[in-house]
Amino acid sequence: MSTPRNLFYAQSGGVTAVINATACGVIETARAHPDRIGRVFAGKNGIVGALREDLIDVGLESADTIAALRHTPGGAFGSVRYKLKGVEESAKEYQRLIEVFRAHDIGYFVYNGGGDSMDTANKVSQVAASMDYDLVCVGAPKTVDNDLPITDTCPGFGSVAKYVAVSTLEAGIDVASMPQTKVFILEVMGRHAGWIAAAGALAASDRSLPPHMILFPEVTFDEDRFVAEVERCVNTYGSCVVVASEGIHTADGRFVAESGVKDAFGHAQLGGVAPHLAEVVRGRLGYKFHWAVADYLQRAARHIASAVDVEQAYAMGRGAVELALAGVHGKLPIVVRLSDDPYRWEVGSADLSAVANVEKTLPAEYISEDGFHVTDAARRYLAPLIQGEDYPPYEHGVPAYVRLSNTLVEKTLPAWED
Amino acid sequence: MSTPRNLFYAQSGGVTAVINATACGVIETARAHPDRIGRVFAGKNGIVGALREDLIDVGLESADTIAALRHTPGGAFGSVRYKLKGVEESAKEYQRLIEVFRAHDIGYFVYNGGGDSMDTANKVSQVAASMDYDLVCVGAPKTVDNDLPITDTCPGFGSVAKYVAVSTLEAGIDVASMPQTKVFILEVMGRHAGWIAAAGALAASDRSLPPHMILFPEVTFDEDRFVAEVERCVNTYGSCVVVASEGIHTADGRFVAESGVKDAFGHAQLGGVAPHLAEVVRGRLGYKFHWAVADYLQRAARHIASAVDVEQAYAMGRGAVELALAGVHGKLPIVVRLSDDPYRWEVGSADLSAVANVEKTLPAEYISEDGFHVTDAARRYLAPLIQGEDYPPYEHGVPAYVRLSNTLVEKTLPAWED
Repeated sequence: MSTPRNLFYAQSGGVTAVINATACGVIETARAHPDRIGRVFAGKNGIVGALREDLIDVGLESADTIAALRHTPGGAFGSVRYKLKGVEESAKEYQRLIEVFRAHDIGYFVYNGGGDSMDTANKVSQVAASMDYDLVCVGAPKTVDNDLPITDTCPGFGSVAKYVAVSTLEAGIDVASMPQTKVFILEVMGRHAGWIAAAGALAASDRSLPPHMILFPEVTFDEDRFVAEVERCVNTYGSCVVVASEGIHTADGRFVAESGVKDAFGHAQLGGVAPHLAEVVRGRLGYKFHWAVADYLQRAARHIASAVDVEQAYAMGRGAVELALAGVHGKLPIVVRLSDDPYRWEVGSADLSAVANVEKTLPAEYISEDGFHVTDAARRYLAPLIQGEDYPPYEHGVPAYVRLSNTLVEKTLPAWED
Repeated sequence: MSTPRNLFYAQSGGVTAVINATACGVIETARAHPDRIGRVFAGKNGIVGALREDLIDVGLESADTIAALRHTPGGAFGSVRYKLKGVEESAKEYQRLIEVFRAHDIGYFVYNGGGDSMDTANKVSQVAASMDYDLVCVGAPKTVDNDLPITDTCPGFGSVAKYVAVSTLEAGIDVASMPQTKVFILEVMGRHAGWIAAAGALAASDRSLPPHMILFPEVTFDEDRFVAEVERCVNTYGSCVVVASEGIHTADGRFVAESGVKDAFGHAQLGGVAPHLAEVVRGRLGYKFHWAVADYLQRAARHIASAVDVEQAYAMGRGAVELALAGVHGKLPIVVRLSDDPYRWEVGSADLSAVANVEKTLPAEYISEDGFHVTDAARRYLAPLIQGEDYPPYEHGVPAYVRLSNTLVEKTLPAWED
């Protein structure tokens, strides 16, 4: 029987409504194996915490606090957008990581993030091997964008999809109540992939009801075609509710959000896609409009999280630790779909290298022929992911989200100069 | 025993998450008194429906459908922004209303709206009397803005307040997870009154947590002071989460949203307050920022409605019909607060004329001395209004909101030319 070694967990990139559910899965599973896993550390602000030796002592948190992570949005230990480059280019950083891991006897590294992070985890694994340091590196998938390949979906996406579907439904009902408002535009996330925008379609069973139109980054934005379709919808349905991805762009590759708008200071790009499209509608059609930009609200909306998503997020955390305990190097747990209806899934695994740096955009067969909506195939894929409500507990009228103490362990190494 | 007479119900102005709960209270209470109330009609698109003799036959809807109105946002019969002018100026319209009421034996008129609508209901009451037409006119309060006097609160406000508090809490947790994001600005409704913005304060117990700053229309916006406070918050708390009312304005009375911004077409005012403030932050402080504009999402968010608000909205509908049945002319039911904690309230009544055309803004004692936050007195007032969750039923992952058939009764009068 080997001596227990410590586990290091880090959150990476934009946070989600359920990344802490994955953290909960990691920590609870680690705690269930005290014979194999000693202490659990988390990086303060992700991988940067490891470089700076800012290691949060997760062991100081009670079982109740850790359980509450399951219903708490955001990144409980802090996240960061920080991409390590190639092993040669960033040799110093990779070596520092291994030094810190060695100083704290870390034998397991769970990196919770998107494609970039899976790439980093893979490289850390290789560097550790080349330095003869015994380390199991595994990933745990996370991204609201749903843009990882191989896994059927990414934890975080189902909840933002539910938020967008519910918000589109509710705004659509509001618009239908107000005969003077003709156009409503909801801007959602998705710089390169239209999965989040596509989820708006789940507000109704067909496109005669809101959303009447969806704008994807995968479809070149043509202002004339957009204006014509808005006019058709208003004439046919009485109003036009649009879900627009922030990443839509014109034929020359320019983001529509970078629309040549200047403010009083002469700065380009004041606003987002929604106000720009609304202005186009006003200028060319003269309709009364409203618009909303959900921004962080959509990915932080734990109050309306998908129960399926929460369950999968937890399962990915548990699965990552189980892979690590099995000594499986360079893999991550994934969601494998067994059937659409009834929806059945199981936890599988994939190589970090296969998931790293590949962006899964909406396939052509998920986009309607005119480019303004989704197909039935897309609905079959998306529908199960928003099923079930997983309400957080409430206190004083707002969700009782947990805050950790995030106490750092004592440093033993010289400071890191970044 | 008198012959039963018919009831006409109309929704007015911007809809809310709970105006249909008031409709539910009106209709269910009317149906409980078949000896006094015959048929229930609703105006298609509010009072305009009465002018056009577009009367929806509510009697065709089942008890289950009417019950489902309690959990359905928007205006089920359509609403409209349409203000009747003075009795002399709009004599033709008032006379037409009475003609339509006479043609359909309408003896009770329940007008569900804000201050303007209470004024209209009051005038209709006077015109009916002057025309010797036997009609009881009552109001039912509704407005997300919470700007009616006398009533302790307005149905619709508690739910938008809960949405803003929950969204601020969630976005604040997201921002705290992302050390690179320094400023987040959430724009909320409230053109002249800061009640909705103030509700953001309920996200935390003090201003060291998000929201760190609230911008009210009641406080003159001073860009230098705003920038200084953002900087102070970032230096003190690590980030600055701002809830900004759409109605903030500068000392010269200009709305901040009308910021001199021009788009590619030369149109003034592309966006809202949030993108403008974000641009100020970027230009003067250089911080990384995010912003969101909730727009219709906030007032349509029935999925996160306040249970207190839903209950009060229903009670206002029931109360309006009870006033009408008691033959009380020219009144509306109101919410009377009996105590803050524990929160206790009862249904009272007030004169339509007292509520009409008076805008209740945030009192000075609810705004902190520096103008950037609320006082404890404001918290005591606001806190009870967001208590309790009243979740709608779900189907296919989204709320199962009801749609009415909205069948019109046969017209008997010449068409109205508007």
